[in-house]
Amino acid sequence: MQIIPKSHPRAKSLLIREKLVNGFDNGLVAKEGLLAQGRGEAFDYLLGEKTGKAAMRAIKAAAAQLLLAEMPVISVNGNIAALCPKQIVKLSKQIKGKIEVNLFYTNENRKQAIVKTLKKNGASEVLGSKIGSSTKLSGIDSARRIVDKNGIFVADVVVVPLEDGDRTTALRKAGKTVITFDLNPLSRTSQTANITIVDNVTRSVDLLVEECKKMSKNNKKSLYKIIADFDNKKNLRESVNQIRDNLTRRSKIA
Amino acid sequence: MQIIPKSHPRAKSLLIREKLVNGFDNGLVAKEGLLAQGRGEAFDYLLGEKTGKAAMRAIKAAAAQLLLAEMPVISVNGNIAALCPKQIVKLSKQIKGKIEVNLFYTNENRKQAIVKTLKKNGASEVLGSKIGSSTKLSGIDSARRIVDKNGIFVADVVVVPLEDGDRTTALRKAGKTVITFDLNPLSRTSQTANITIVDNVTRSVDLLVEECKKMSKNNKKSLYKIIADFDNKKNLRESVNQIRDNLTRRSKIA
Repeated sequence: MQIIPKSHPRAKSLLIREKLVNGFDNGLVAKEGLLAQGRGEAFDYLLGEKTGKAAMRAIKAAAAQLLLAEMPVISVNGNIAALCPKQIVKLSKQIKGKIEVNLFYTNENRKQAIVKTLKKNGASEVLGSKIGSSTKLSGIDSARRIVDKNGIFVADVVVVPLEDGDRTTALRKAGKTVITFDLNPLSRTSQTANITIVDNVTRSVDLLVEECKKMSKNNKKSLYKIIADFDNKKNLRESVNQIRDNLTRRSKIA
Repeated sequence: MQIIPKSHPRAKSLLIREKLVNGFDNGLVAKEGLLAQGRGEAFDYLLGEKTGKAAMRAIKAAAAQLLLAEMPVISVNGNIAALCPKQIVKLSKQIKGKIEVNLFYTNENRKQAIVKTLKKNGASEVLGSKIGSSTKLSGIDSARRIVDKNGIFVADVVVVPLEDGDRTTALRKAGKTVITFDLNPLSRTSQTANITIVDNVTRSVDLLVEECKKMSKNNKKSLYKIIADFDNKKNLRESVNQIRDNLTRRSKIA
């Protein structure tokens, strides 16, 4: 492990990167996951590496949606398991939701390594790895169509952080309400999900847990109102503007 | 190797990615190189995955600078060797320049793999790997400070594609004229180099070879004029605007 001085201007970003590289070395993360992290880094840099107003609004809508869900499920891939396993387990406990491992580049060893990591971080049960418990979502080509009959298949709300566009579409077609974390406000996932949190998941998952805790005392009517007032497309345009404004500002300093 | 259908909307980008992943499997590319490729993909996506006017202007200035150079050297790292070895060799022949391997995350095996790839692609000589031929550039911490006495150390113009900011600064301090390829117009490398080609190197290195060929008949005076007329900072601002405009356009379609 390299030592990154706290004074480094990009120390936080480098620490996140280090977690992911460790996850790769420990068999959690695929090569493609390293590339995806790089794409995320670029967008996070452009967003100013902070949780903006639009992201905060999406987090509140997501919290309301999760509190109203009858059977929420959190889908976990290798990058999420490497970046924030403890936080994901915390979220699942807060919302009384299940955790399911679901990989784009499937591989039994990697799946088992992810399950182990999640359990080490406090998960009592992890779906998606038991033989005989799987079924298929229609409209999706990759290994990700295989889902757990007791998990995503029967969920009403699915949290899919760091997702691919095809799967988000398939989940929507299957009638699920989809909440995603995606740093690119223009990606197909961002545009297809019901609620898109355009933020670095390592920053915003804690904020989501916090909001779920705060809102747990709200009545149903007020939660429905939060969701009704939320406009995902409009919110995404605001994130695009955040990037545009950042580019202008940085360009003036440079 | 996966098969990517030509009809895929992002086929070109995926083919480039595949080259890099193969380079990783063959020991040319570091893990950090996969992350860097991801960052590049994001910026290329935002630039519209095409060579813009600003990039074309930088390519012309770079060609003029290389034709005027007394001793140009092209610095090659793992990503470049994986992405476009043949094109880099072609450029070195066109400008009668040397090729030197120089790695941020140094590793003897990786260096040898890169040298082998370059030679297989037609390079007659590759500097940077012989014991007893190395010396140090001051003002730089990483392994990249080690340069070849007969190469970068004595070069007047250095081409550094996919570079890090510290090294570009060190090369400038050492009095070199630096030409770089960088997809992020705001990066330290972009801002520090004399001529920054904000484009995907796999697209623009061919264009650079072409321009060098075309301009080889120009007289010195006209080449000097091209360089004098080129304003790198202004050109970089234009690339930032290209990204801004693309964001606006995509945001309207979405």
